[in-house]
Amino acid sequence: MVPAGDPTHQTVDKLAKLIHNGDTIVDGGNSKWTDDMARAKVLKKQGINYVDVGTSGGVWGLEVGYCMMVGGPNAAIKRLAPFLDILAPPPDEEHGPGWGHMGPTGSGHYVKMVHNGIEYGMMQAYAEGFGLFEASEFELDNAKIAHLWMRGSVVRSWLCELAARAFELEGNDLAALDPIVAESGEGRWTVEDAVEKRVPLPVITAALYTRYETQGRGDFAAKVNAALRAQFGGHAVQRRADG
Amino acid sequence: MVPAGDPTHQTVDKLAKLIHNGDTIVDGGNSKWTDDMARAKVLKKQGINYVDVGTSGGVWGLEVGYCMMVGGPNAAIKRLAPFLDILAPPPDEEHGPGWGHMGPTGSGHYVKMVHNGIEYGMMQAYAEGFGLFEASEFELDNAKIAHLWMRGSVVRSWLCELAARAFELEGNDLAALDPIVAESGEGRWTVEDAVEKRVPLPVITAALYTRYETQGRGDFAAKVNAALRAQFGGHAVQRRADG
Amino acid sequence: MVPAGDPTHQTVDKLAKLIHNGDTIVDGGNSKWTDDMARAKVLKKQGINYVDVGTSGGVWGLEVGYCMMVGGPNAAIKRLAPFLDILAPPPDEEHGPGWGHMGPTGSGHYVKMVHNGIEYGMMQAYAEGFGLFEASEFELDNAKIAHLWMRGSVVRSWLCELAARAFELEGNDLAALDPIVAESGEGRWTVEDAVEKRVPLPVITAALYTRYETQGRGDFAAKVNAALRAQFGGHAVQRRADG
Amino acid sequence: MVPAGDPTHQTVDKLAKLIHNGDTIVDGGNSKWTDDMARAKVLKKQGINYVDVGTSGGVWGLEVGYCMMVGGPNAAIKRLAPFLDILAPPPDEEHGPGWGHMGPTGSGHYVKMVHNGIEYGMMQAYAEGFGLFEASEFELDNAKIAHLWMRGSVVRSWLCELAARAFELEGNDLAALDPIVAESGEGRWTVEDAVEKRVPLPVITAALYTRYETQGRGDFAAKVNAALRAQFGGHAVQRRADG
Repeated sequence: MVPAGDPTHQTVDKLAKLIHNGDTIVDGGNSKWTDDMARAKVLKKQGINYVDVGTSGGVWGLEVGYCMMVGGPNAAIKRLAPFLDILAPPPDEEHGPGWGHMGPTGSGHYVKMVHNGIEYGMMQAYAEGFGLFEASEFELDNAKIAHLWMRGSVVRSWLCELAARAFELEGNDLAALDPIVAESGEGRWTVEDAVEKRVPLPVITAALYTRYETQGRGDFAAKVNAALRAQFGGHAVQRRADG
Repeated sequence: MVPAGDPTHQTVDKLAKLIHNGDTIVDGGNSKWTDDMARAKVLKKQGINYVDVGTSGGVWGLEVGYCMMVGGPNAAIKRLAPFLDILAPPPDEEHGPGWGHMGPTGSGHYVKMVHNGIEYGMMQAYAEGFGLFEASEFELDNAKIAHLWMRGSVVRSWLCELAARAFELEGNDLAALDPIVAESGEGRWTVEDAVEKRVPLPVITAALYTRYETQGRGDFAAKVNAALRAQFGGHAVQRRADG
Repeated sequence: MVPAGDPTHQTVDKLAKLIHNGDTIVDGGNSKWTDDMARAKVLKKQGINYVDVGTSGGVWGLEVGYCMMVGGPNAAIKRLAPFLDILAPPPDEEHGPGWGHMGPTGSGHYVKMVHNGIEYGMMQAYAEGFGLFEASEFELDNAKIAHLWMRGSVVRSWLCELAARAFELEGNDLAALDPIVAESGEGRWTVEDAVEKRVPLPVITAALYTRYETQGRGDFAAKVNAALRAQFGGHAVQRRADG
Repeated sequence: MVPAGDPTHQTVDKLAKLIHNGDTIVDGGNSKWTDDMARAKVLKKQGINYVDVGTSGGVWGLEVGYCMMVGGPNAAIKRLAPFLDILAPPPDEEHGPGWGHMGPTGSGHYVKMVHNGIEYGMMQAYAEGFGLFEASEFELDNAKIAHLWMRGSVVRSWLCELAARAFELEGNDLAALDPIVAESGEGRWTVEDAVEKRVPLPVITAALYTRYETQGRGDFAAKVNAALRAQFGGHAVQRRADG
C-alpha cells in the first residue's frame, strides 16, 4: 500500500529486483488500472505475478471491515486467497465474502476507481439535498433527518450514517467547515475513461466539476461571463465612454 | 394514503365535512408540501388539524420497516404519536425512532420530496457506474460487485443491495428491460423548488433530465442539433442544390 | 418598459383606469409570460388590449438595432405595427423585419425568455472555452482568438464580438473582474418552465447553476461534501477521539 | 488536409522521406494537438518544420470564407504567411486578418479543438430552446424566430442563421430527421483535456453527453435505473413471488 504514481512505480521496481520467479507483487494502493496493466506486462517477462487490490472502507474499515476488489491471474490469486480471507470481513450469508476476484490484472483497481466515481455522485446528491434544507423556509434538523433516513428509507446508506455523525459533530450549519471539496485522482480517471469510451456520466461528472468549482477552478469562466454581461449591459459602455 | 393532487384534495374536502372541531386529518400520501400548507390554512378555520406524513421504504417496507417524516402542529402530532410508534420500526439505539416530527405543516412532505430528489441522484450514480462496467474491456460480474460493495465499501446502501438483487434476477446485462425510466412528481418538484430558491442542484437535476431523455423528451433538441450539423457539413448543401 | 413584477403590475392597474375601451397597453419590459396572460384576461373584460413585447439587443441596441418579439391579438398588433416598424431595425433581405408577431398574449415574452436561456448557455460555452485557454500550457491571446473567430468560424456571433471587446478592454486575464455572475429572472423561469413541461435542458440549466455557484449558493453543499470526506478519512476520527 | 490519426501519421512519414532540411509540413486537418507536438519533435531532428492549421467554417467556407488557427515556429509561419493570406478571407477593419498565429506547434489545433467544444455547447443551447418551443402551448414558427433573432438580438450568430435555414428547409417540426447526433473527436478531446487539467466544463460536457445519449450510449444506465425502480416498487416483488 504505497501512494499511486511514482512511489508505487519505484517500489515495484525495487521489489522486482529482490524477488524470484513465481513470486507475486500485490499493489494494495490506488494505482491507475492502466499502470497496473503496463507493470504486469513487464513483470511477467521476469516470471513475477502482479495483483492489484482496490480497498474501500475508509478509516472506519479497521473497526467495521472493508472490502477488497482484486484483479490478477487465477493462480496468483488462489495462492493469495488465505491472506485476503484474513484481511476481509468474514463471509456473510446474504452478500458473500468480503473480497472478490474481479478479473485479469487491472480489474481490481478499475472496479475500485468506478466505485469512487459513484461515491462522488452519491455524496453530492446528499449534499444538494441538505443544501436545499439550508435554504428552506422550515427550520430543519439535519442530524435528526439523516438518522431518521437510516430507519428504512430508500436513501439509507453508510454515507447517510456518516452525514448523521457529521451534523452531530459539526452542528446543523457546519459552521466550522470551509466550502471547499478536495478530490483525488479516481473520480477524474473515471470521467476520463467514460469520455474516451463515449459513455455518458452526467451525475458523476457534475459531482466532479462541482468539486473543481469549490476549488476556484471555474473562476476564469465566471469572469468571462461577468465581462460579457458588462458588455451588453450599460456599465461597460459607460467605461468605454470614459476611457 | 390517497394519490397526490385531485384525489387527495377531494378526499380531504369530503372528510372535512364529516369530522369535528379538534379532529385531525393525516395525509400519508405524496402531496406537494405547498398543497399541504394551503389545505391546512383552510381547515384551521374549521378547527381541524392537518398533518402531512411522508413515507419511504417501498414495498419492502412491510417486511423491513419504513420511515415516516411528519409535519404539523405539536399538539396534533403528540396525539398521533402512539399510532406512529406502532406503524414505524421500533426505536434503534444508534438512529432513534422510525418516525420524526420535522416541523410545521408541509415539512413532512417537503423532507420526503427532497429525499426522493437525493434518491434520483444516487440511483443515477450507480447506474452510470454499471454503465461504465458494461462498456469495459473487462468482463465484470455486476451482481458479484454489488454484493461485494455491501461488505464494508463506502458506497454500501440499500440501493446497492437492490442492485445486487436486480442483477441476480435480471442477469448481468438486464436484457429484458427497456432503457426507459419513469418519474413521479417528487424529483421534479425538488428541482423546481431549488431553481426558484436559487440553490444549485447539478446532480439531482442531471438525474431528472436523464430520465426525461430516456422518455424521448430530448428528441426535438437532438433533431435541431442534427439539422445544424447537416447545415454546416456537406450533406445539407447537397440537398439544397438538389431541391 | 417598467421593471417586471410589482412595478409593471401597478403601472398596468393605473393605466387601465385612465384608458378607454379598445385601447391597448403595451408591456415592453421583461414580464413573465404567465403574468401577461393573467393581466390580459382581466383587461379584456374592460375591453382593453394587452400586448407583450420582448426586446433583445442590450445597450448596443440604440446603435445597431434590436429585435422585438411581440405577443397579442391580431387586431391590436396590426394597429401597433407602424410604431414597431419605426422602433425596429428596417427589414433585411435575408432575415426579414426587425420585429415579429409570435402568437397570442404572452408569446412575445415567452420567446424572449427562452432567448435569454439560450444566451446563458452560449455565454457559458464561450466562458468555458476561454477558461480552458487560461489553464493551457500555451500562452494564448484571448482577444486575438475572439477576433479571429469572427472571420468565418462556426462560433462567430455577437457574443463572440463582445468577448473580443471585453478582452481588449479588460486585458487577457480579466484581472479587474470578480468571478461572480449575476442573473435576472429569465434564465430561472426558462428552467422552471422546462422542468414543469418535462423537457430536458442540460446546457441551459448547467449555465444557470454555474451562476448560482459563483454567487456562493452551493457553499452549504460543499460543506456537506467536506464533512463527509472528513468522516471517512482520518481527520474526523481523530477529532472524535479528542472530543 | 488528411483525416486525423493514422492517415495523417502515415502521410507525414512518407512526406518526411521526400522533403529536405528546412522544408515545412503543414497539417491542415483535425489532428490532436498532442500528436502535432510529438510529430514536430521527431521532424525537428531531421530539420523539418511542422505547422498545424485548424480550420473552421464548414462547407460554406468556400463561399463566405473560413478562418485558420495556426501553430508552429515563427520562421516557418513567416514563410507560410503569403499562402495563408490567399486562403483566408481578406483582413477586416474590425476583426483583422482571417488567419492567426496562436503560438508554438500544437496551439493551432488546440485552439480549433476548444472552438469545437464551444460549438457543441452553443448548438445544444439553441437546440434546447427550440425543444422548449416544441413543447409550448403556443404554436411558434421556429424559422421566423431564428430569422428574427438575427435582427439585433443577443443570440444572433452564424449558427442561428443556420437554424433559420434548417427550419426553412426541413419544416418547423424537422419531421424527416432522426433524433441522433453524431460527434467527431474534438468535443471529446476538449472534455478530456479539461478533466485532466481540472477545469470545470459543465456546459460543453453536458452537450457532449447529450450526443452520447442520443446514440443510445446511456441505455445500460437507464436499464439499471429501471431495474432499481422495479426493485423498490411492487412489480419486481411480484415477479420474485412468481419465480
